[in-house]
Amino acid sequence: MKEFKSFASDNYAGVLPQVMEALQKANTGHARSYGADEITQRTRALFDQVFEANANVYFVFNGTGANVLSISAATQSYNAILCADTSHIYNDESSAPETFTGCRFFPLTANEEGKLTPQIIKERLIRSGDVHYAQTRLVSITQSTEYGTLYTPEEIKAIAHVAHQHGLFLHVDGSRFFNAAAALGCSLADISSKADVDILSLGGTKAGMMFGEAVVVFNKDLVEHIAYKHKQIMQLASKTRFIAAQFEAMLQDELWRKVASHANHMAQQLQQVLARYKEVKITRPVQANALFAEIPRAWYEPLQEHFPFYVWKDSTHEVRLMCAFDTTAEDIAGFDAALQHLAK
Amino acid sequence: MKEFKSFASDNYAGVLPQVMEALQKANTGHARSYGADEITQRTRALFDQVFEANANVYFVFNGTGANVLSISAATQSYNAILCADTSHIYNDESSAPETFTGCRFFPLTANEEGKLTPQIIKERLIRSGDVHYAQTRLVSITQSTEYGTLYTPEEIKAIAHVAHQHGLFLHVDGSRFFNAAAALGCSLADISSKADVDILSLGGTKAGMMFGEAVVVFNKDLVEHIAYKHKQIMQLASKTRFIAAQFEAMLQDELWRKVASHANHMAQQLQQVLARYKEVKITRPVQANALFAEIPRAWYEPLQEHFPFYVWKDSTHEVRLMCAFDTTAEDIAGFDAALQHLAK
Amino acid sequence: MKEFKSFASDNYAGVLPQVMEALQKANTGHARSYGADEITQRTRALFDQVFEANANVYFVFNGTGANVLSISAATQSYNAILCADTSHIYNDESSAPETFTGCRFFPLTANEEGKLTPQIIKERLIRSGDVHYAQTRLVSITQSTEYGTLYTPEEIKAIAHVAHQHGLFLHVDGSRFFNAAAALGCSLADISSKADVDILSLGGTKAGMMFGEAVVVFNKDLVEHIAYKHKQIMQLASKTRFIAAQFEAMLQDELWRKVASHANHMAQQLQQVLARYKEVKITRPVQANALFAEIPRAWYEPLQEHFPFYVWKDSTHEVRLMCAFDTTAEDIAGFDAALQHLAK
Amino acid sequence: MKEFKSFASDNYAGVLPQVMEALQKANTGHARSYGADEITQRTRALFDQVFEANANVYFVFNGTGANVLSISAATQSYNAILCADTSHIYNDESSAPETFTGCRFFPLTANEEGKLTPQIIKERLIRSGDVHYAQTRLVSITQSTEYGTLYTPEEIKAIAHVAHQHGLFLHVDGSRFFNAAAALGCSLADISSKADVDILSLGGTKAGMMFGEAVVVFNKDLVEHIAYKHKQIMQLASKTRFIAAQFEAMLQDELWRKVASHANHMAQQLQQVLARYKEVKITRPVQANALFAEIPRAWYEPLQEHFPFYVWKDSTHEVRLMCAFDTTAEDIAGFDAALQHLAK
Repeated sequence: MKEFKSFASDNYAGVLPQVMEALQKANTGHARSYGADEITQRTRALFDQVFEANANVYFVFNGTGANVLSISAATQSYNAILCADTSHIYNDESSAPETFTGCRFFPLTANEEGKLTPQIIKERLIRSGDVHYAQTRLVSITQSTEYGTLYTPEEIKAIAHVAHQHGLFLHVDGSRFFNAAAALGCSLADISSKADVDILSLGGTKAGMMFGEAVVVFNKDLVEHIAYKHKQIMQLASKTRFIAAQFEAMLQDELWRKVASHANHMAQQLQQVLARYKEVKITRPVQANALFAEIPRAWYEPLQEHFPFYVWKDSTHEVRLMCAFDTTAEDIAGFDAALQHLAK
Repeated sequence: MKEFKSFASDNYAGVLPQVMEALQKANTGHARSYGADEITQRTRALFDQVFEANANVYFVFNGTGANVLSISAATQSYNAILCADTSHIYNDESSAPETFTGCRFFPLTANEEGKLTPQIIKERLIRSGDVHYAQTRLVSITQSTEYGTLYTPEEIKAIAHVAHQHGLFLHVDGSRFFNAAAALGCSLADISSKADVDILSLGGTKAGMMFGEAVVVFNKDLVEHIAYKHKQIMQLASKTRFIAAQFEAMLQDELWRKVASHANHMAQQLQQVLARYKEVKITRPVQANALFAEIPRAWYEPLQEHFPFYVWKDSTHEVRLMCAFDTTAEDIAGFDAALQHLAK
Repeated sequence: MKEFKSFASDNYAGVLPQVMEALQKANTGHARSYGADEITQRTRALFDQVFEANANVYFVFNGTGANVLSISAATQSYNAILCADTSHIYNDESSAPETFTGCRFFPLTANEEGKLTPQIIKERLIRSGDVHYAQTRLVSITQSTEYGTLYTPEEIKAIAHVAHQHGLFLHVDGSRFFNAAAALGCSLADISSKADVDILSLGGTKAGMMFGEAVVVFNKDLVEHIAYKHKQIMQLASKTRFIAAQFEAMLQDELWRKVASHANHMAQQLQQVLARYKEVKITRPVQANALFAEIPRAWYEPLQEHFPFYVWKDSTHEVRLMCAFDTTAEDIAGFDAALQHLAK
Repeated sequence: MKEFKSFASDNYAGVLPQVMEALQKANTGHARSYGADEITQRTRALFDQVFEANANVYFVFNGTGANVLSISAATQSYNAILCADTSHIYNDESSAPETFTGCRFFPLTANEEGKLTPQIIKERLIRSGDVHYAQTRLVSITQSTEYGTLYTPEEIKAIAHVAHQHGLFLHVDGSRFFNAAAALGCSLADISSKADVDILSLGGTKAGMMFGEAVVVFNKDLVEHIAYKHKQIMQLASKTRFIAAQFEAMLQDELWRKVASHANHMAQQLQQVLARYKEVKITRPVQANALFAEIPRAWYEPLQEHFPFYVWKDSTHEVRLMCAFDTTAEDIAGFDAALQHLAK
């Protein structure tokens, strides 16, 4: 039987051909290490252009590294971070943030779409100045969210406004930031620098890179210590050029938009397919490249044989189907066929 | 003028063609993430074969990550680590080990060759069981050392013996482990599993990989928590196959030996060249791919223009020249010409 | 006007005369430091007798120290702790636990009485063995709770059972443990060693000591590292005899029961007084020495002038009144008079 | 036989009668907790007066707590601390500083008297701005030193000057600070605020208090976070008045000078006694309350039977004899008699 793509995660996908080509082109002779090379310099300038900001960019290995570096840039060890109780940073990065920064998380109950609102945040802005209470210093939101939903530029701005009013910084965990911008039809700047975000974890791996993410700092208050922490946090690559070159390929001519739009489009296709089955209930708005749906539990096993996916919430049979840059119409059709077989 | 290779560091070099090819071959469709893929499984089996051991292998992003993961596997937060005062782990990894593990370093004065001896270690094995004193739990040595010198298998065994007698573990920081084994003409196992090493940081990047190192655990007492710490320490790659594939290429048919031997040979050539200049004094035995020499300070600048290198100890004009897998006889000849020009 | 006692906290009270006397008696000549003295040895034996167990006892300075030492004895840095979202350990100890142990908290929604139940705990026992998720290793409950309510011996046993079934340890934060045992009319052992508790923070300060708490370890699996962490965590007193002597005084002839019963009794008296005011609604069962009630907000200021107390939840006008060992019937009467004045 | 005092440590001594009296006087009714009480306020004002400075004072439980709070106020986690290799902070506080602050220690070889000099410090002020190297931010010296020697006000000023020139802070570990000032015949200010010290751990316990030390901050750059860290570090006492009252007693009418001078005088007496024995060699200048001497190893046991002391360096038979506020001429005479017996 034909091998289909997995819907388990976009990190099951490999590397975009354009990115692979950029890696090969970057492999010419010697280059200074630890980010002092030309490609890294050039790519940093490209970030400034794309993000329409005088940003500070730090290339890191993976998403957890990006998030922890972001937190460490914004906090002292007695600080706390507000995030959605559904967030990746709270559920899927072990206790890396605590161990490295010493900080506390205060998880907030996200709304149905997995999003925080200014109101939800405000309710937790308590006990400022009280030494007995871990002092909240950072709000972290995910774009696109763990439910594949989106914050609009206005929503981000509103959250940034509340945060800044109370002396907090706003971090965006953007492991699927490209998918978000593509789905919103906006620029990368529109949902970051122009929306008053202070610091961004920009994901590369899930978008089609081999490895590598970037921490993009828009607020100069956060740069004093970050270069030292970048190294200390074990996220400074000696051959940085090979992360930078991948990002250069992604940002040039908006390759990111093309590939993220495709993944988003595949999720829409999947939604159309699933909507036809009465046994299936789509549970969250399909806005980026993820689809959440309740399906009969008996379908798990036969479906996963060819189309691996994650069971999100077993109690309600809610599963997550994730599309990647390389998901094809054929994969969707194959999934449809498998469903037809099960639905009789 | 022709562009020569830098002697600054072997991490200035790019990626071996065979490694680049392996990366491309690994880029086929979807693969399970976080090390559950086939290439990773296959490469782990290859490690067992090459290291002649039933080892546990954890692929990480960089050398600091490998070292900190190794320490964290062997220690509690009230423990201490013994290492050479010249070691990379003590001088070039910020305070990453302390921040992540909470442990203390007790640096030991290394001998002239940058090596620890059983005697040096024994003298610091004090106050065991005293709660006021950070309890020593790990000895870390570097192979090849920061001075480009080598521990023989017997020397490692002797250190392991002292460590184990006192309830300590032995870690080897092997960012240039391939150079060491190539220079010693021995197998990788001879200076690790067979020399009673407990845990090894095996370097890939400086040997010609794009990124990636491996933590190889030989002592099962160190595996209880390590998989959790691997993630927590921000060193678990989602697309692990792309680290594993590089190591597979390095280990197959002993590619590592071929390329490391070449780098070592270039260092020998360099030594022959330098020995001809009366203004130059070679300061350490040239055993692997590094050469240390005292040169006139006035030569720094003109030499570095075309051949970047590190000044190791400015007070004595001691410089470090590092050869890489891609250093050529032409580079050496070019350097010789530059020296001739300066020496008149 | 006469000076009344505060209802703000039992740590506003001073030192019991019997404890002060014990401190003076302990002050005779030299004694070995760091707990190697006779009084400490003697008091440890008394703990074993009182707790009907072969316990390991560590004297510490304060409650946060006791809790953090307890956590550190039971966890690795990638672990998580389950506790009530209302708990002191989560709300009133800054981020001390995270900074020192690296661990994550997963706060659970406590029931109306501020208590956890086996069911509440079970629902969070997810993702065991998943390296991406901080691995739950400890359940921490408070006895008496932050709402002045009590866990019965059976309730504790049931929680311990669930914890142990899932490979977790059970910690009791007992800063008001004496109040709990006195109110339950049971022995200290009944709600600790005999209820399968693994480790206990036993409070002395709020019960009438000058300073000092004890970590009492019942489960030998938790003692391997704890003596080292006791020192490392900055909680090992050089003149330990002066903590031990206070506990000796508290435990001898059950002084603790006498003084805690008095405080509990005062809370009952206070309840009878408050029940007479229609403007007042008692919000939690009054079981130990705390009373929670909703009172008119306009009453805060005039009442607090002579009877300081904490506003627990401003949105509902819920306040906390805490009785101490030195609260008197006269204080209650004075409060009653103040209420009468306000109620017209 | 009569019971003599131990020479093991000044923390074997109990509590000064004046301090015990102050504790009893402080025990009157309720007082606000966590340092908001009147005694604490009053004592803080007394500190300002005595230290001739607008200082910030934080009362803590013990010396390790004082030192770690001081470090945490001055550093980020990627920083390093310079201290003498003989220092208490490096040898006798487990890895508490690393675990809580994440920082690295770079131990410096102290001179014969156990002191650092500007020259020793300068030699280690390397690699500023290099992200790979833990960035030195704090110098910590001990007054009086671990060898019972003294820094003069001028020596401290000179070290402060070097530190400040290089953007470092100067910390003084003053667990025997009173002994130092008494021996120097100067004010507390002369060797702290007036000598450009940034932050001081002021010892109370060894001087005759039951427990308690103070962190005294002279440099306002260090106060931004310290109140939060004071709590977070588990060193904020709920009944702070009982630490403050002890310090008030020590500072009033310079009680500290009287008792510290006595201890210092006893060390001088001891020196005169020991100087008479040809088998004994005094190894360090006797300047405060400690005496170091080489004695025959055969004498250890018979002497320690009645006069416990620490063997400092077994290889040379060097022992430490420490006098306390309660050491008497009779104790010295008794020791003399024991020596006579051994010397025949």
